[in-house]
Amino acid sequence: MKQAVKIAVLGCGTVGAQVVRLLQERAADYQARCGASLEIIGICVNNLAAPRPDFISRDLLTDQAEPLIDQADLVIELIGGIEPARTYITRALEAGKSVVTGNKALLAQHGPELFDLSRQREADLYYEAAVAGAIPVVYGLRESLAGDRVQVVQGIVNGTTNYMLDQMEKKGWSFEQALSTAQELGYAEADPTADIDGLDAAAKCALLAQLAFHTRVSLDQVAVKGIRQITADDIADAKESGRTIKLLAIAQLAQDEQGRECVSCRVEPVLVKPENPLASIAGAFNAIVIDAEAAGRLMFYGQGAGGVQTASAVLSDVVAAAFHLVSGGSAPRESAYADLPQMPAGQVRSKYSIRLEVEDATGVLAEVAGIFARRGISIEQVRQRNDSESAKAEVSLATAWARADAIDLTVKDLAAAEPVGRVIQVISMEG
Amino acid sequence: MKQAVKIAVLGCGTVGAQVVRLLQERAADYQARCGASLEIIGICVNNLAAPRPDFISRDLLTDQAEPLIDQADLVIELIGGIEPARTYITRALEAGKSVVTGNKALLAQHGPELFDLSRQREADLYYEAAVAGAIPVVYGLRESLAGDRVQVVQGIVNGTTNYMLDQMEKKGWSFEQALSTAQELGYAEADPTADIDGLDAAAKCALLAQLAFHTRVSLDQVAVKGIRQITADDIADAKESGRTIKLLAIAQLAQDEQGRECVSCRVEPVLVKPENPLASIAGAFNAIVIDAEAAGRLMFYGQGAGGVQTASAVLSDVVAAAFHLVSGGSAPRESAYADLPQMPAGQVRSKYSIRLEVEDATGVLAEVAGIFARRGISIEQVRQRNDSESAKAEVSLATAWARADAIDLTVKDLAAAEPVGRVIQVISMEG
Repeated sequence: MKQAVKIAVLGCGTVGAQVVRLLQERAADYQARCGASLEIIGICVNNLAAPRPDFISRDLLTDQAEPLIDQADLVIELIGGIEPARTYITRALEAGKSVVTGNKALLAQHGPELFDLSRQREADLYYEAAVAGAIPVVYGLRESLAGDRVQVVQGIVNGTTNYMLDQMEKKGWSFEQALSTAQELGYAEADPTADIDGLDAAAKCALLAQLAFHTRVSLDQVAVKGIRQITADDIADAKESGRTIKLLAIAQLAQDEQGRECVSCRVEPVLVKPENPLASIAGAFNAIVIDAEAAGRLMFYGQGAGGVQTASAVLSDVVAAAFHLVSGGSAPRESAYADLPQMPAGQVRSKYSIRLEVEDATGVLAEVAGIFARRGISIEQVRQRNDSESAKAEVSLATAWARADAIDLTVKDLAAAEPVGRVIQVISMEG
Repeated sequence: MKQAVKIAVLGCGTVGAQVVRLLQERAADYQARCGASLEIIGICVNNLAAPRPDFISRDLLTDQAEPLIDQADLVIELIGGIEPARTYITRALEAGKSVVTGNKALLAQHGPELFDLSRQREADLYYEAAVAGAIPVVYGLRESLAGDRVQVVQGIVNGTTNYMLDQMEKKGWSFEQALSTAQELGYAEADPTADIDGLDAAAKCALLAQLAFHTRVSLDQVAVKGIRQITADDIADAKESGRTIKLLAIAQLAQDEQGRECVSCRVEPVLVKPENPLASIAGAFNAIVIDAEAAGRLMFYGQGAGGVQTASAVLSDVVAAAFHLVSGGSAPRESAYADLPQMPAGQVRSKYSIRLEVEDATGVLAEVAGIFARRGISIEQVRQRNDSESAKAEVSLATAWARADAIDLTVKDLAAAEPVGRVIQVISMEG
C-alpha cells in the first residue's frame, strides 16, 4: 500500500495558492481520509521571482513542468487556457497519472481526446472545479444520478453576469454601471468578454450536457447569446411582466422534427418565471436545477467562484483520486455511449418576448400580428405603451412556443415592415 | 472481468418495486455505465401471494432471503426496520458482498457495527436513499466535500412535517387538520409518530453528522423535539415576528465550556429567518444547507420521499457498487477518525422565543424580566397582547443567546411564578 501520494501543482494563482494552503494545513485530515499522506513535491509557476503568499515555500517552486509531472502520482492543473495545460495533462495521463483540473475551456474544447486517454490509460481525470466552483454538480451528474435519466439541466453558472443582472434589477443600473462595479469588486475581469458574451457559461454547458446525456458535446455545439444587449429597459419590462432575466445554460433532451432524440445546448438570457427556483438566485451565486425521470427536480446551490471555494472542489477530487491510488479502483469514466445527435439550433423551441418601437397609428397592431401569423407563430400577450410626446409607441409581444429559425425570420420581417421603427429586443421566455 | 452482476432485492414495497422496474427498463443504460449487465436473481418478499405490479415477475419472488443473499454479488435491502434487515445485511457484508440500503433507522442505531464490517470485509455499503430521498447529500458529504471541513449541516429532512407546517402557515390550519390531510394524501403514515415526533429526522441527523464530522453519532445522541406541540397560534405568532417555523435537523461543530471541539445534534422546530433559504422550502420537499470552511454555503434541494425518487437514489448506489465489482475499487469507507465528543444537550446555545400567559397588571413584566435576569439570560424583544375581555395578557419574549439548560430552569421558574398563568410555548430561534 502506498504510504504517500506525490502531488504536482501546476499553476499558483488564486485557486492554486489556496489548494497548496489547504493541502498543508489539513494534511492530517487528508491522510486519515485517503490512507496515505498527500505530499506536494513541487509547484510549477511561470515566474519564479513573483511575490507569493508566505505559506508557499520557495523550495517547492519550479518553472519546469515536465520533470515535475514525471515524478508525480497525481497532477493538479490550475494554469487554465488551452496550452500548455493540454500538453501537460496529456503527458500526465499518458503516463497513467491521476489528473485533477478546473480547466473548463480546455475540457469543453478537447474533452473527448482527454477523456479517451483517461479511459485507455486507466488514469483518473477529475474536474469538479470546472463547473460552478464548490457546487458538486459534476459529482451529482456523474455519480449521484448514475442510475437515473436526466432530462434537463438548467443553471446559472456564471456568477459575474448573475451579479450584474441582479444589480440591474435591484438598483435600476445600466449594463455599463453593472459591469464597471463588477470589475471594481473583482467579479469581472478587465476583459470581461468570456463572462458577458456567455462563453464561460457555454463551456460549462457543454460539460454538463456531456455528463447528463452520455454524449460528446463540444463548445461549438452550444448556441450562445450573452448579456451585452440587455438594457435597463429590458429589465424594467421584465419586471412589469412579473419575470426576471437570468443568463441560463440549458442542456436538454429534445425530439427533432424526425422524432429522433437529440441533445440541445444553449446559453442565453431567459425571462424566468418567479416560481422557478433560479429566479431568486441573487448576487454572484450559482445554482443548477436538474430534472431527472425518477429523481424529479433537484437543485444545487452555492458559490460558483472564488479561490478558496474552487479549491474545495479541487481537493474533493484530489481526495477521491488519491483514495483510488491508495486503495485501488478508479473514477467513473466519462461515457459517450448514448451518442445522441445535436438538435439543429434553428429547431429549438421556446416562447419569446419581442419588443418593438412602432408608429402610434390605427391598424399597426393588426399589421404586426399579421407578420407573426404568416410565419405560423401565435401571440399570447400584447402590451402597448404610448409615448404622448411623440408619434411612437412601444409594443411588447409574448409569443406561444415557436422554433428559433421561425422567430429569426419573423424578426427580419418585422424590421423591414413599414410601421415598425425598430425591433428593440428579442428574449426567450420560460414556457 | 465480470460479465454480469447478480442482484438480490430484499423487500418489494413502494421503493423496491420501482427499483425492480428501473433495473429492467434501463438494463441497456446500466450495462453501458457499469460495463456489465445488472441481473436481478431474486426478490425476497414476506407474502408470496400478495398482489404485485405486472412488471414484477412471479418467477423472481421468494420468501427465503438467505439462499438468495448467498448467490448474489450485490444486495439491495429495502425491508426497513431493524430485524431482519440487520441480520441480512450482516450476512451479505460478512461474505464480502456489496450492500445498498435505504434503511435510516438501522444505520442510525447499528451503523457503527455495519460500517466496521464493511471496512473489514472490503465490501461496499451505500445508503444514499436513507437521507432525503433522491437528494445526493450522502454523496455530497462523503465525496464532494471530502477535501473540506464541514461546520454546520442543517436541513428539512422530513417531508411530512414540512408539508404540515407549510399548510398550517399558508391555510391557517390546526395541527390536527394538517395531520389528517397529510394522511389522506399518503404523506403521513396511519401511525405518524416517527414523522411528527421527529424520530425519522433524528435518524437522518445522526447519519449526516457521522458523514460531516467523521465521528460516530448514534440516534440516542440526537436531542429530539417534534411538532406535536405546535399550534395554529404558534404559527400566527411566528408570522407576526416575520419568521417561519420549520422542523430542522441541525448537526454542527461547537465548543463546549472547556473549549473542546464537539459535535452537537438536534432535531427541533426552529423559528427561521426569511433570508434563510430553508424558510421558503414548501410542501413535502426536502433541503439541506451545508456550511463548509472552504466551499462556503451549499444547498441541496429536491424530493425527499416517494417511491420512484427514492429508487433513483438506490440505483445511483447500485451503479457505483456494480462499477466497483466490475472494475475494482471501493466506496470511500465511513471514517470516524475525528472521534469528537458529543456536546452535552444542556450546553447547546440558541436564542429562544417564549410565550407566556400572564396577569394583565402593572409590574408583571418587571417580575418576568427579573426571572430571566436571575438565570443570566438577556431579553432582546418583548411583545405584549392584552385581551380586553379578561384580565389576561399574552407576552412573547425573544431571548439573547442562552444555554438550553438555563432556559429549562427559567421556564420552570416562570411556570411557578405567581403572575404567570402558563408557559404557552418555547421555541428555538435562528440567531
